[in-house]
Amino acid sequence: MKKSVLRKYAHLIATVGVNVKRGQEVFIYAELDQPEFVRMVAEECYKAGAARVNVEWSDQALACLHTRRRSQKVLSTLTSYELEKWKYQAEVLPCKIYLMSEDPDGMAKVNQKKVAAAQQAKMKLIKPIRDKMEDRYQWCIAAVPGAAWAKKVFPHLPKGKAIEALWEAILTTSRVTDDPVAAWEEHNRDLHDRCEYLNGLGIRELHYTSKNGTDFRVRLMDESIFAAGGEYTLTGNYFNPNIPSEEVFTSPKRGEAEGIVYASLPLSYNGQLIENFSVRFENGKAVEVHAERGEGVLREMIAMDEGAAYLGECALVPYASPIRESGILFYNTLFDENAACHLALGRGFGGCVRDHEKYSLDELREKGVNDSIIHVDFMIGTEDLDIDATTKDGRVVPIFRKGNWAF
Amino acid sequence: MKKSVLRKYAHLIATVGVNVKRGQEVFIYAELDQPEFVRMVAEECYKAGAARVNVEWSDQALACLHTRRRSQKVLSTLTSYELEKWKYQAEVLPCKIYLMSEDPDGMAKVNQKKVAAAQQAKMKLIKPIRDKMEDRYQWCIAAVPGAAWAKKVFPHLPKGKAIEALWEAILTTSRVTDDPVAAWEEHNRDLHDRCEYLNGLGIRELHYTSKNGTDFRVRLMDESIFAAGGEYTLTGNYFNPNIPSEEVFTSPKRGEAEGIVYASLPLSYNGQLIENFSVRFENGKAVEVHAERGEGVLREMIAMDEGAAYLGECALVPYASPIRESGILFYNTLFDENAACHLALGRGFGGCVRDHEKYSLDELREKGVNDSIIHVDFMIGTEDLDIDATTKDGRVVPIFRKGNWAF
Repeated sequence: MKKSVLRKYAHLIATVGVNVKRGQEVFIYAELDQPEFVRMVAEECYKAGAARVNVEWSDQALACLHTRRRSQKVLSTLTSYELEKWKYQAEVLPCKIYLMSEDPDGMAKVNQKKVAAAQQAKMKLIKPIRDKMEDRYQWCIAAVPGAAWAKKVFPHLPKGKAIEALWEAILTTSRVTDDPVAAWEEHNRDLHDRCEYLNGLGIRELHYTSKNGTDFRVRLMDESIFAAGGEYTLTGNYFNPNIPSEEVFTSPKRGEAEGIVYASLPLSYNGQLIENFSVRFENGKAVEVHAERGEGVLREMIAMDEGAAYLGECALVPYASPIRESGILFYNTLFDENAACHLALGRGFGGCVRDHEKYSLDELREKGVNDSIIHVDFMIGTEDLDIDATTKDGRVVPIFRKGNWAF
Repeated sequence: MKKSVLRKYAHLIATVGVNVKRGQEVFIYAELDQPEFVRMVAEECYKAGAARVNVEWSDQALACLHTRRRSQKVLSTLTSYELEKWKYQAEVLPCKIYLMSEDPDGMAKVNQKKVAAAQQAKMKLIKPIRDKMEDRYQWCIAAVPGAAWAKKVFPHLPKGKAIEALWEAILTTSRVTDDPVAAWEEHNRDLHDRCEYLNGLGIRELHYTSKNGTDFRVRLMDESIFAAGGEYTLTGNYFNPNIPSEEVFTSPKRGEAEGIVYASLPLSYNGQLIENFSVRFENGKAVEVHAERGEGVLREMIAMDEGAAYLGECALVPYASPIRESGILFYNTLFDENAACHLALGRGFGGCVRDHEKYSLDELREKGVNDSIIHVDFMIGTEDLDIDATTKDGRVVPIFRKGNWAF
């Protein structure tokens, strides 16, 4: 990929993505796949005024090795210096940039129970710190091609060509045009208008139906609002948490969802694929799951903690989204979630409550925002998906018809 | 390079190098150049019984960027979590493996004064912790080829071939034979015999002369002993701190060295080359330096702290060493120091005092072991170097004649 194009993408991530402010600190999380691009992002952060940029490299192959070779006890231990890093971040509130490039299937051979137990143990220490940081720092997830991921998406291309094709797909769907900053401004205006309309309706419940068997009702909170694209930290810094982002989303009310949903795309969770699956809800809780592949992983996932079986997000994405229209199945949630309507199990968004800045995190959770150590999107949008809203005053308003916006 | 050969090298580093014991923790420090090999070393450490292996990746290009872009204050700050990691290590005493692959000239363009000031500031916090760990943990420095380093060593080869040639050179000089473990056992026996002979002489002073102008006398401590190859931690774990290693070395007595030495090889310090230089000593201290290239860097180096201008090591390496005979100039101290007799400015070795385990670090320093935050070897061995020892009972014994052992 041409350096000048990559430079624009790096600039987009640093400015529109996390929107680094003068004097801020930045953490960049990256695999070893694209060091030159990682250096570009670091440089763009410095140019934007960052006082200190830290790059934290990781390696999925080593993560597999550690999982296999460490005892459950060692794997579950958060070292004193890892904990100190979380505390430091809660204090400093750095911008966090996550550059995803992992093989979506790269952890297929590791013991998922062992991974889950380790995450649960470490999260006991991390979660209170992460809660403290919630909505207080800018973050952005974006992607760069890894070789194994590229081969998964373009299995018939040789490695080099597959990487190039994945770069192309990432840059196009991320709106890295001649002027990506302007493209994102326009895109954010569109998304904002959709939210305004939906928030004006006073929606009480959404009802999803599709010929694939999906028939599902979910209740929103009285104060649920729809959000999309860019958002603000509680300290007033604007940022775009996902590049790309096509979704309009809200947090539903915990404990009020009924019916069954069928996944329309595979899901990569902790480097393991789950395919052709369904989830049935009763009283808001996932009570029955089936999957042709990865059912065990799915069961582990919804058992991570109490909130892992409840919903944290309902997101609306038209079937005509540019990412779905690219015809590429990315096997990566950052992209696939923007190709189809989806739900998320786990943690909800306090920011999807009207005037959320007036409430504490505990108050937001009392209102019905779900809490969990996980937040996992799974795709349910289809070509024929209909969604109807029932408003607080009893009207039924069509939101989606045949997979696309009905308004 | 063939995977089976690299596997032997990885095994050598894990077993003969740091000699990981069951249940120990390991830190591996590596640049991004050879991730597959780094994974092999991690795996060999686990196989040897490591409970936890941590890989700490770094990137010289990012180090340059940070140095340029961070303010002096930010660059000089050790964060709370970095400090906590040092404390953790002083507690856990992990094995440390350093896999060098940096461009010897990679930091040429950064402000060396800024780097030095930052190191000095951070070392104030790190040094007491590092002193606490001294002689208590196993460590090993070994090398893997980086692209820029390979091109520096083999400028006429294209990149891929240069990397392959550097692998070949590293593996040959590191004695990665069919049975590297046996080769190292035999090599260590040879080095041990040399030390026994030298330690039996009761050497008081060494006198170096060469036609290049070197004429230099250095006094040893009454209890100085020569060491080489493998050594023991205070807790009794055997390890080989350098792969390769050809030197027989001791710590001289701080404050007693007179005369001038001329460097016989370039020196890469903090990613900057110093070439064709000389150092003149008075009362043990470097009082005058000249260099055709990098004189400023050399001056910064000896001004790092009070001990940086005093000697910490005298090492004897025959001109007929296999590394010198390879005819390759590595521009890397790990190799070049094993191609020629050398001295080191800065920190001395407490382990080079007879019965050192009976003394505290402070007591060892009182005996004349130099202290500093730096320890930098520079090469003075030539084809015609003569070294004479004056013993405590007044005999003059030839140690080197024409660059090689005289016994």
